[in-house]
Amino acid sequence: MPDRTPPEYFDILSKTSTEDSICVSGTVQLKKLVAGELRKWELVITSIQLLNLANEEAARLDKLKHSDPNKLPPHYRFLQLRTKELQKNLRTRSIMAAVVRHVLGEKHNFTEIETPLLFKSTPEGAREFLVPTRSPNKFYALPQSPQQYKQILMSSGFTRYYQLAKCFRDEDLRADRQPEFTQVDLEMSFISHSDQVLCVVEDVIYGICNNVASKPVYTLNEDGYIIEAQKNGTSPSFYKLSYKSALEKYGIDKPDLRSSLQFVNLSSYFKPVNCPDEFNIIEACILKGALAKCAHCDIPDSLTNPDNYSRRAPSIIPITNSSATTWFETLTKDGVMVPVDSFDPRKLNELLGLEEGDIIAISNRSEHPYENPTPLGRFRNLAMAEYPDKWKRKLIDSSGNTSVPPSDAFVSCWVHDFPLFSPSEENSGSNDLYPKYNWDHRESTHHPFTMVKSEDYSLLESDPYLAHGEHYDLVINGVEVGGGSRRIHNPLVQQYVLEEVLKIRNYNSLFGHLLEALSFGCPPHAGLALGFDRLCAMVVGTQSIRDVIAFPKNQSGVDPVVSSPSNVDSETLADYYIQTID
Amino acid sequence: MPDRTPPEYFDILSKTSTEDSICVSGTVQLKKLVAGELRKWELVITSIQLLNLANEEAARLDKLKHSDPNKLPPHYRFLQLRTKELQKNLRTRSIMAAVVRHVLGEKHNFTEIETPLLFKSTPEGAREFLVPTRSPNKFYALPQSPQQYKQILMSSGFTRYYQLAKCFRDEDLRADRQPEFTQVDLEMSFISHSDQVLCVVEDVIYGICNNVASKPVYTLNEDGYIIEAQKNGTSPSFYKLSYKSALEKYGIDKPDLRSSLQFVNLSSYFKPVNCPDEFNIIEACILKGALAKCAHCDIPDSLTNPDNYSRRAPSIIPITNSSATTWFETLTKDGVMVPVDSFDPRKLNELLGLEEGDIIAISNRSEHPYENPTPLGRFRNLAMAEYPDKWKRKLIDSSGNTSVPPSDAFVSCWVHDFPLFSPSEENSGSNDLYPKYNWDHRESTHHPFTMVKSEDYSLLESDPYLAHGEHYDLVINGVEVGGGSRRIHNPLVQQYVLEEVLKIRNYNSLFGHLLEALSFGCPPHAGLALGFDRLCAMVVGTQSIRDVIAFPKNQSGVDPVVSSPSNVDSETLADYYIQTID
Repeated sequence: MPDRTPPEYFDILSKTSTEDSICVSGTVQLKKLVAGELRKWELVITSIQLLNLANEEAARLDKLKHSDPNKLPPHYRFLQLRTKELQKNLRTRSIMAAVVRHVLGEKHNFTEIETPLLFKSTPEGAREFLVPTRSPNKFYALPQSPQQYKQILMSSGFTRYYQLAKCFRDEDLRADRQPEFTQVDLEMSFISHSDQVLCVVEDVIYGICNNVASKPVYTLNEDGYIIEAQKNGTSPSFYKLSYKSALEKYGIDKPDLRSSLQFVNLSSYFKPVNCPDEFNIIEACILKGALAKCAHCDIPDSLTNPDNYSRRAPSIIPITNSSATTWFETLTKDGVMVPVDSFDPRKLNELLGLEEGDIIAISNRSEHPYENPTPLGRFRNLAMAEYPDKWKRKLIDSSGNTSVPPSDAFVSCWVHDFPLFSPSEENSGSNDLYPKYNWDHRESTHHPFTMVKSEDYSLLESDPYLAHGEHYDLVINGVEVGGGSRRIHNPLVQQYVLEEVLKIRNYNSLFGHLLEALSFGCPPHAGLALGFDRLCAMVVGTQSIRDVIAFPKNQSGVDPVVSSPSNVDSETLADYYIQTID
Repeated sequence: MPDRTPPEYFDILSKTSTEDSICVSGTVQLKKLVAGELRKWELVITSIQLLNLANEEAARLDKLKHSDPNKLPPHYRFLQLRTKELQKNLRTRSIMAAVVRHVLGEKHNFTEIETPLLFKSTPEGAREFLVPTRSPNKFYALPQSPQQYKQILMSSGFTRYYQLAKCFRDEDLRADRQPEFTQVDLEMSFISHSDQVLCVVEDVIYGICNNVASKPVYTLNEDGYIIEAQKNGTSPSFYKLSYKSALEKYGIDKPDLRSSLQFVNLSSYFKPVNCPDEFNIIEACILKGALAKCAHCDIPDSLTNPDNYSRRAPSIIPITNSSATTWFETLTKDGVMVPVDSFDPRKLNELLGLEEGDIIAISNRSEHPYENPTPLGRFRNLAMAEYPDKWKRKLIDSSGNTSVPPSDAFVSCWVHDFPLFSPSEENSGSNDLYPKYNWDHRESTHHPFTMVKSEDYSLLESDPYLAHGEHYDLVINGVEVGGGSRRIHNPLVQQYVLEEVLKIRNYNSLFGHLLEALSFGCPPHAGLALGFDRLCAMVVGTQSIRDVIAFPKNQSGVDPVVSSPSNVDSETLADYYIQTID
């Protein structure tokens, strides 16, 4: 065993460059220290082999890789993937998939079943990708979810199905979305209530938090404190919040419960003016002590920037000593609202208790909860981002001691009691201040297979808009991580919903296969899907799902690594009986 | 607790029909036996609920379901799936997937990484499915395998990748093929030889056989006996067979080694006539004692039916007392072959030892091993199917005792030393008796990323057809279960193969991303893919992969359950800048 690396190896090493692949054998041994040296170990090389050399571009990009990997050219994704962070992200994702499969497949005895990706075009819902075939005018479509196949599986005698399913949506990719994504998809039969599904899904979340993220799961108690969620096995343990109260308190159906910010209904003091009649609820969100107590208080841009609101921004007023009890006069002057007949400013001020340095935001919304988030819901999210350390909800332990929860705590809840149907929005995509609804055109809030809550059964016929669905959304830290429901198992009810409520004329050619599967004694069933990319992003602590996907598409749907999508010649297209048009 | 079921429950039950879903609670108790009764236990019902009734069709189909589930209408796949057999098949598949993931993910520390399904069109190899986008003349393609992405992952610092990958091939579905299928896809970097991959893959097979099929894995020893394969961890333990000797002995590159049938080369006795010069090797396959010893011996139709051969059938001669030493005269008379100058019938008869009741089949093949299977290779497979109990290879145990192996034994081997390139077949698809090759147009035998064997490196330039690839096929019971290779990691070699050997003009637009990934110091790597559907079919013991897929497509690529593919209106197509043509 040589006690030092032969000099010729240093010659070889000196010729290598960054990113070269080399193979080195040797012995790690205690180093004879020269005065001033700190390293105590050295590798004495006994053989060295250059496996593959990197080109000069690699050396040029090396600094970038270490300083800001996100600035590496996106078509060099392989260099980005060599960074510690992305290595860790993808390895974590792999472990998370294993935990999910362990909880579902082994602990809860679910059967993993693959459903087809070459599916049928069912032009309801989001835009889908088509796949031409070598038969004239015959197309497959890539599935947006395995929903229909998994329901047919429930009619096939499988009582517990799951799959990490690839799904596709050809939507505009403005937000942090990908045209292809992965969901943890599951369904259970012979169950009469969704709670059984919720328990299994909570177990998946417990599994991930405990085994991958190494931390507890938090939720709320009835007093509004954050508590450590305690698995009890027989009923769901996460806080349940109705859609209606989520909208009332937080202005959004996926509230971030880490913040204690909550709205105050001012409808008994004011009514909005210059707006459609139905937008008659007026609410305030108060940012207590947001501003320094100074004469010139500037409200942060992010809160007032109209680009951060989809239709109308709330009216936002900084509170000074002089405006603490008179702030509303501006709004009545500006034609935003007027006091009601019984208006009592003393009572209002008592209720709000505004002080110098507070910010109050005012907006209106409709009683019909279809505008989601409301302007104030967006304001609350912007305020949380602007003031990450303020208005944090307290954690309470089993002895009743309160504290600030860990900054990376996952606060989970179930949102339920959604309206089963929504009116279609007539001016979606426009810049109108208020949404307009076509009440004659009902849409499923989630999908047409969701079961109505049993107490609302008769509303299906008498007033479908008032019916609630047995649907549950899992929300963690303000992110909708998953959603699911009990499904309609009775073919007549399903047909009624498709034909009479949703008025889908060709329901039989689109969904006849499902009606048929239900009509052969399909047992009651319920299921749920978790957005796996989103869940991975949360666990590794990144904002973008791109950071947990090996080869994501960019905002234009382009894979910069392989340059897809790409041109195809007309001869090849002719094999599929199609041609391009401009 | 009632000691008998209340009579009103029997009323309810008597109104139920087959395939209804019901919910029954009760107590299982010892039955008071009436004389002559055999059942000892009964269920005393305490509550009963009808969950969902089946329509009348279900009752009508009930008999069919129990007698011959395959005759159930294919669009009632949910009824087929309720049968015991398909329930078991899909549950076994689920367990197999868990075993595969356990061996790779947990035991061997592979990282599971999902690669995109919206890939780029690379029109080399099998026909692919295209996916139009909402940009004019821009298409994704569905991947035939994650090959290129996984190689890029090897250049991304992941040393062990795997995935149960969805793959797509738009081929004619004559054989038992599906347009979408699943493969266990894996790749390892920083390895210098494929043996490391082979060991991991063998471990997967050991895992499945031991934990799912509960049986040992068998292979061959050097003496041609079947032995129980013994995992040794450091080098592959399955028998290795070169492509050349597989063709010589069995006429096919995926020989079923459960049979001891093996060819005899007769080229030193005869030469074929009326055939292309290069098809000058003449071989025999003898079915010893196939026929009853009778005057009128009829050869089974399956062996002679020309439909069972792709180009030419062998000459098949039943041996009687009178023809045992003169059988070849028919063939010389018929212009099939002529004796060579040194022909010695005594030596021939000594070699063959034919007796009454034997069958001899004679055919010729080329020295160039591109006709695969050969006519005699097909004959051997047909003979094995016709005579399932004959010419079985013996099993030998560690004490040297021989026996007949279990009928469901998995006999595994590796086939290797394939030619790296093959000439393209000029008359493929025609009914010509002999294939014709265009030697100027080389194709990759497997794919263009396969590494040449190091000893053949210089042949890449001097005579590519003589070069062997470092490729391995895993063959079990005559089924090609998987294939893999070491890949080219040097960008210059890869470019040379694409440009100079395969003469792909636009190689840079098709494979530039891969060349780039290699040029950044990509380490040496190798990998393999197992056909998961095929493997599942083998383990559950079915002939068709349809029996291990929940919703398979039929021979026309149609999913009879949802009736896909289907028409799409021209308005929708216009969103994708395409229109149909006739």
